[in-house]
Amino acid sequence: MTTETIQVEGMSCDHCKHAVESALTNLNGVSSADVSLEDNNVTVNYDETDVSFDNMKDAIEDQGYDVK
Amino acid sequence: MTTETIQVEGMSCDHCKHAVESALTNLNGVSSADVSLEDNNVTVNYDETDVSFDNMKDAIEDQGYDVK
Repeated sequence: MTTETIQVEGMSCDHCKHAVESALTNLNGVSSADVSLEDNNVTVNYDETDVSFDNMKDAIEDQGYDVK
Repeated sequence: MTTETIQVEGMSCDHCKHAVESALTNLNGVSSADVSLEDNNVTVNYDETDVSFDNMKDAIEDQGYDVK
């Protein structure tokens, strides 16, 4: 299991937090995702044999946010 | 049919826009609701025989926003 913190631009409210966390935890291999609106990031616990950084980046971007 | 523009605090993104518009159009008597994020308001077309300002205020506040 790997923990990574990803910088995300454009998250402004609890709806955004929920959208990003749900998009990530819906991916096979992601066990948890915790958005900090204050820090503009999401901390993800994932199994790198099942999911890649690019998969997670795509899932966040599909929700309309930019990954730095 | 009456048109009223209601000032709302705390709407920050398209999710907020959708939440407020849906909450209002789900009320019996509201025919349309259009949020302006830029102007922090929502313009509502409604039939005052079916729905009151207080009903609409409650619906907005139930979504977590403040009506001025």
